[in-house]
Parts: sequence; C-alpha cells; structure tokens
Amino acid sequence: MAKGVTPRSEDFSQWYVDVVKAADLAEHSPVRGCMVIKPYGYAIWENTQRELDRMFKETGHQNAYFPLFIPLSFIRREAQHIEGFAPELAVVTIGGGKELEEPLAVRPTSETIIGEMYAKWIRSHRDLPLLINQWGNVVRWEMRPRLFLRTTEFLWQEGHTAHATAEEAEAETRQMLGVYRTFLEQYAAIPVIPGRKSEAEKFAGAHHTYTVEAMTGDKKALQAGTSHNLGQNFAKSFNIQFQDQNNEMHLVHTTSWGMSTRVIGGIVMVHGDDHGLRLPPRLAPIQAVVVPIWRKDDERERILAAAQALRARLRCRVHIDARPDLTPGYKFNDWELKGVPVRIELGPKDIEKQQVVLVRRDTGAKETAPQATLPERVDALLEEIQAHLFQQALAFREANTFVVNDYATFQKQNEEGGFLLAHWCGDGACEARIKEETKATIRCIPFDQKPEAGSCVVCGGLSQGLVVFAKAY
Amino acid sequence: MAKGVTPRSEDFSQWYVDVVKAADLAEHSPVRGCMVIKPYGYAIWENTQRELDRMFKETGHQNAYFPLFIPLSFIRREAQHIEGFAPELAVVTIGGGKELEEPLAVRPTSETIIGEMYAKWIRSHRDLPLLINQWGNVVRWEMRPRLFLRTTEFLWQEGHTAHATAEEAEAETRQMLGVYRTFLEQYAAIPVIPGRKSEAEKFAGAHHTYTVEAMTGDKKALQAGTSHNLGQNFAKSFNIQFQDQNNEMHLVHTTSWGMSTRVIGGIVMVHGDDHGLRLPPRLAPIQAVVVPIWRKDDERERILAAAQALRARLRCRVHIDARPDLTPGYKFNDWELKGVPVRIELGPKDIEKQQVVLVRRDTGAKETAPQATLPERVDALLEEIQAHLFQQALAFREANTFVVNDYATFQKQNEEGGFLLAHWCGDGACEARIKEETKATIRCIPFDQKPEAGSCVVCGGLSQGLVVFAKAY
Repeated sequence: MAKGVTPRSEDFSQWYVDVVKAADLAEHSPVRGCMVIKPYGYAIWENTQRELDRMFKETGHQNAYFPLFIPLSFIRREAQHIEGFAPELAVVTIGGGKELEEPLAVRPTSETIIGEMYAKWIRSHRDLPLLINQWGNVVRWEMRPRLFLRTTEFLWQEGHTAHATAEEAEAETRQMLGVYRTFLEQYAAIPVIPGRKSEAEKFAGAHHTYTVEAMTGDKKALQAGTSHNLGQNFAKSFNIQFQDQNNEMHLVHTTSWGMSTRVIGGIVMVHGDDHGLRLPPRLAPIQAVVVPIWRKDDERERILAAAQALRARLRCRVHIDARPDLTPGYKFNDWELKGVPVRIELGPKDIEKQQVVLVRRDTGAKETAPQATLPERVDALLEEIQAHLFQQALAFREANTFVVNDYATFQKQNEEGGFLLAHWCGDGACEARIKEETKATIRCIPFDQKPEAGSCVVCGGLSQGLVVFAKAY
Repeated sequence: MAKGVTPRSEDFSQWYVDVVKAADLAEHSPVRGCMVIKPYGYAIWENTQRELDRMFKETGHQNAYFPLFIPLSFIRREAQHIEGFAPELAVVTIGGGKELEEPLAVRPTSETIIGEMYAKWIRSHRDLPLLINQWGNVVRWEMRPRLFLRTTEFLWQEGHTAHATAEEAEAETRQMLGVYRTFLEQYAAIPVIPGRKSEAEKFAGAHHTYTVEAMTGDKKALQAGTSHNLGQNFAKSFNIQFQDQNNEMHLVHTTSWGMSTRVIGGIVMVHGDDHGLRLPPRLAPIQAVVVPIWRKDDERERILAAAQALRARLRCRVHIDARPDLTPGYKFNDWELKGVPVRIELGPKDIEKQQVVLVRRDTGAKETAPQATLPERVDALLEEIQAHLFQQALAFREANTFVVNDYATFQKQNEEGGFLLAHWCGDGACEARIKEETKATIRCIPFDQKPEAGSCVVCGGLSQGLVVFAKAY
C-alpha cells in the first residue's frame, strides 16, 4: 500500500484524490474550480498532444487559433447552444478599466466564433472541406470540481470542420471518433465503446453526437472524447454558405470534436491500483527508471557511472534516480506511485555479473536480465505492459458489463455498478425516468450491435436497439 | 510587386497589414483587439514552439499549467505589478450565472498565481532551483491593436523559476535571454542587441529586465523577448521561503521570461519585401514548393508523378502545388507572397533533361540543378538562405545604427529612424525628456560595450555608458 494513499478498494473517490496528489499530477488552485497541472501530469498531456496532433495532421487537419473571448450575442445565436452553455459561462464585463458595451464570454467551446470566421472564409466549393483544429483552454463554470475530470478551466483540442455535403460531414464525424478510439486504445490502453449519444445527452446544438465511453476502476462510465455532426445548425445561425460548381449557393455542413485533459483522469481511474498510478508506456513521461543501489558511499560513483552507460544504450525515456539521501526501498515506492512502467535495479553484484533486475509495474513480476541485450528486453517489456494494461482493462469491463432485460434486475445490478446493456424504446421519458430513479444515464447507443428483437427495459415497448446505461463521471 | 500589397517603401505600416493578410497569417476577429491566427501563421508559431521548447528542456525546465484566472487581490499584492497591469486587465465578474464575490482577472502574466503556488511547493533547499515554463494565452487590453505586435489576447510562453541565491537567479535570467538570442538569430534569422532595460522600461515588479531588441525594415526597434530578474519582490509578496542546510529560513529569488506570437510580426517586419514575406527556412512551414508546369492536360499526370517522386527524395518540408486551374505565374507570385524559401519548377523539358529550375525567394536567383543531387542542393540552399537573411538584416541594422554625441544630431537623426547609440547619465529625467520630445525610448543598455568616457546626450552630465535609443513598436 502506498504511503498516504487510501486503498482503492476502500474508497475509490478518496483513492483518486490521494493518487493524483501523491503522484504529483495536479492540485487545486486558490481559484475555485481551476486546477494547476504539475510537471509530471503535464508531461502526460504533452505526450497525449503529440500523438493526437500527429493523427490530426495525418488526416489532413491544420492547427489555427481563435479568440478566447466570444461576444454573448454570438452564443445566443444558436438556440440549443445558449440553452446548454448559459449556466456555465464566465463573463468578462470590464476591460481596460471600463465597463464593456457588450459583455464577453470566456469561450466554453468555439463553434460560434469559428462559425463567424468560416462565414467569411468560405466562398466557393474550392474552399471545402475546411479542416481546422485548435489547442487551447476553455472555461465552463463547475460547481463540484474534480481534478482532471471536471474543472472550471480545462485544456483540450477542438476540431472544427466544414463540408459541402451531409455525407462528408458524417464521414468526418465518424473518422475523428475513430482517431479518439485509436488514441485511447493504442496509447492510453483504455478500451472504449464507440456509439451515438441519445437526444438528451448530445452536445448543445448538434445534429447528433458520437462518443467513446470507458469504464473506470469503480465500474462507472467516463466519456473520453466526443465528435459532433452539427448538420447545418451553425451554418444557418452564422450564414456559412458556399457557391457550388453551378454557381448555386448552399449552406455548409459542420462538425466539431474534442478531447481534453480529462483523459489523464481516465488513465488514473482505469489503470491505477493500491500502489498508485500505472501508466501506459506510450504516454508515460518516464518509461523506465534506474534505481542505483549502493551500500557504501564509495560505491556510489561507480554505480552511477554504470547507470549512465546503461541509459545511453536504452532507446526509451529513462530517468536515473540519483537522490543521495533516500533508500532504494523509498525510491521503489515513489516510482510505483508515479506509475513508471519498468524499474531497473542496479547494484554492485549486478555490475559484477553484467546484469540488472527488472521489475514490471503492472504485474510486479521480477526478472534478471543481461545488460548486453537490455535495450531489446526493455522495449519488449514496454510493449508487453502496454498490451497487458489494455487487456486487463478490457477483461474488467467485460466482467462488469451485464445484459439486463427487466427493470428490477436493472435497478439491482445498477447498485453494484457496471455497464448495463439494455433494450430501449427510444423515448426520452423512459430515459428520464431511469436517470431520476437510478442515476444511470444512457452512455451511448453502441455502433457495434446486431439487430435484435427486444422490449424497452422500462416501459416494455418496442426496442429501437441496445444501449449502454451506467452511472458516469 | 505583389498583387494587393502596398509597396514597402511607400507605406511600411500598410505594407505590413497587407502582407499579413495576403500571406494568410492572421486577421482581426469580431472581438476588438483579438486576432485569429490562420493555419499558415500558426504553423510558424508551431515551429517556434518546437525549437524554444527543446531549448527550455535542454536547460532543465519542465512545462506545467496554471489557471487562466487570477484573483484581483493577488495582483494587488506586489505594488509595482498592479500599478503596471491594472489599466490592461480584463475582469470576470460573473461566473456560473452569479456575480462573483471576488472578481477574477484574466491573467496578463502569471507571476502572482505562480508565486502563490511556489510558496506551497517550496519547503527546502532540495526543492530549488524550481524551473518551470508554461505555454498559454494571456490578455492585456489593447487600445491600438496591430496583428501579432499588439493584441489584447496573445499566445506566449512564460518561464518562472525560483532559486536559493541571487547569483543563481541572475545566471538564469541571463541564460534565458541567451536562449532567446539563439532562437532569434539562428532560427528567425533576426539579429538582436541584448541588454538591460532602464528603470522606466523594466517589467512591473522586476528587480531588472533584460531584453533582446531587433530592428525592423522601417528602422524601428522591436522588443523580441524579455527576461526578468525579480529579485525577492514576489518572494516577499507571496512569502516564498525555503529552509537551508542549517535549518534557517530564507526568501527565494525568482525570475520570469517570455516570448510571444509577436515574434511572427518581427519575422514579417525584418525580412519582408515588396513581393511579400521572406521566411527563414528553419521556421518556414513549407521550405520548398514544387510548381509543376504543363502545357497540355495529358502532360499533367506525368509531371505530377515526377514531382511526387522528387518530394519523396527531398529531406525538407515540401509542398506540391497541384492546383489545376491556376497558371504557373500565378503560383509563383502566390508562394513568393507566402515567403517560401525555395521554388522548384518542373516542366516537360526538365523531366527530359533530368533537371529542375530552382529559384531562391531571398535573392530571386535562378539556377538549373540536376535531379540526381537535388536533396543535397536544396539542403545547402536552405542553409545559404538562412544565413543570407541573417546577414542582410545585420547589415541593414549596422547601416542604420548611429553614434550621436549631441542632442541636435540626435533629434535630426531620429527623424530618419534607426538605432541611436548615445551616452546617458542614467537620470530618468533625461530619458523622459527624450521620450517626450522625440518619441524615442531607451531600448536597452547593451551588454556588449567597452567602458568609454562620455557626456549624456541630453544634459551633458557624466555618462553611465552607451544606450540604444529608438522609436519602437
């Protein structure tokens, strides 16, 4: 058990708070709801950004930057949008010492200001598709902040695209959900269920919203990324039109999609254990930590030199913990807490025998490995750990996903947590009743399902398909 | 002359506006003072970020993220700081639908919120030095916005460090100015004069401020990066203390340093000409553009295939302009306007002779080059252009730097523009008089000067050394 960390099994919420703090990922700031992301936590975000940004560019997107401030009148122009975001806005009323004529919202998302610009930029079918992404910060006033999961300010990326046809916009919306799924599964080692949001759960102003839903270690759902087909809603509100090959004018079809620092909370909640974090190697700031072990001070120099020689040969992100005043045992705990995938122990005997001791963070398994082939062994181990974390999370989700056919079973199973796969008639009233009575919401209508006859778990009416219900973060 | 671009010699200000717009770097947004950075401009910023971030990490800094919002009471805690920043603040007074008890400033810079956190994080000498950088946006209300140079919101990085001793803080302040100089000279190809700011020109709350000053094409000064030794000013205001080896408590010494999207404006103003931008190869989003030339449509496929084969062999950032409906001449102008360092022309005859035509953007020089050795030739050319842009800017600055020994000459020369190197007694009254009467300010007290006897150019009093005066952006 890690020092200062509540056991996960005992109190998951407190465990989460303890791990985020003890692993030095982030902390609350004096500004209510706003967090400080500390260097170790920010390094995970930098690795996230690097991989996502590469995938965005490979799919033809370019980055740009739009203003932090949005006139309130813009946000009001799309009716559902203002309804959804009004309660969460931070509003600037004073600028340069004077009261502003029109108050400015600090962007909660940028569809409106970007819509205004796209209306100027798009003239002809030659300007389409317009494929832009923005990295930045947004603000949504948060009454019950939780580090990474719900904060008043958070960092994210928001993609905004415009297309000539509904089909292209739909393909883009699906493609970008696919990018999120790839990132989550292959980099964050988080298995997700891709699907569509219900009308009640979709983005304010969207035609429809797609989502990837992950299961946390306490069997709740975490929405890890969303992609919205905005149809022509914003095109209408902002008059974004183009001239086609026949000189006829049409409204464009737009999409938007976002992933945020919330994903770091997801990594903690999906992979962490009683000893602290377990980071997926591909996103870990430090992939292997060398802990040199000396009994006498005169050994120290020699062992550090050997550690440095090893590091020079390794091909991953390596840190040598050379802190002089701490015991190896203290250091082991510290790096376990911080979730470093591989520990390399190096003592006088290891040097004699030209070997090291390797310890996997995910399983705790120990092995002795020859120094000669260490780079290959560590690379292989990192791949194994990456795959194992994913498999473990997938097995956990599968073990905690239940098909339920009646409301009594639903209520009982929901008490235990997990994903409940149930038939739904498509009626918002049944959805609202479940939310009211069980706190479970429709996380998504999974893409991957075979048509199957069934009755709504609430009203018994004709099913429109299976949906995933769960309590969610 | 580029279409739609006012000649530089005719009206430098209008030329700047025209070039930024025509090269598609940025534009004004509907929110007064805030700009939209378009993909081509943002790509220059991404290249800037990549190089600076690498240099920050090589000098031991880590990235982190602090809140956008700062309680007004924090900013008030350092007396000079609030005096400097109060008139420029944007203030949030409404959050989540309610009036806030304490209004929040949108950060104009983050010394205060970071100081508050450092006071919690720093306990012992073992926690020092603390070396952190943040990439983000800041807001300073701007009455006379100019794209990139002065905008209400801008993107930047701000480094914030804490040290045990005054010597270490001073060394850090100088080191980071050195990083800015290296970046500006070796990447942006902008020669700069490093030096110290006068008391009147230093950062609000700094012990002293170092700066790197560039000369623009209209012979004005542009402050391109600053590094502040904050002494113990913020340590006192935020009570940032550490315990030394003897268990005694001391205030830390802090520094901060920043470079912003303003540097993109600098690149335009230093290197641009009547044909548009001239981008330094190391920061250019596109380093070489291939313009395929076909006379008949049946040649098109063959030439595009050859262009793609060439691109696959080139080792730099290459774009093929395959637009079907535009003439080669139009494309030449377009890429000149966008400042792409090397143009590669490829027509049917070139394919026959296994050659290309290369055109340098900086000089306009044309050469025929064999395709066999094209990658080597283009790499060499990019290096030559990088060096030439720097040399040209340096020669221009030297030709427009004048030693002036009396006030009449000063006033006359200042009308013509340029850097005026003059003796100064160190008295703020003389500095204020010059500013009032000539609009020239002290840009810096250059580090690189030999002690030399002299009299103040204003009052004739004993000189404290040579300073650079200029009108500035």
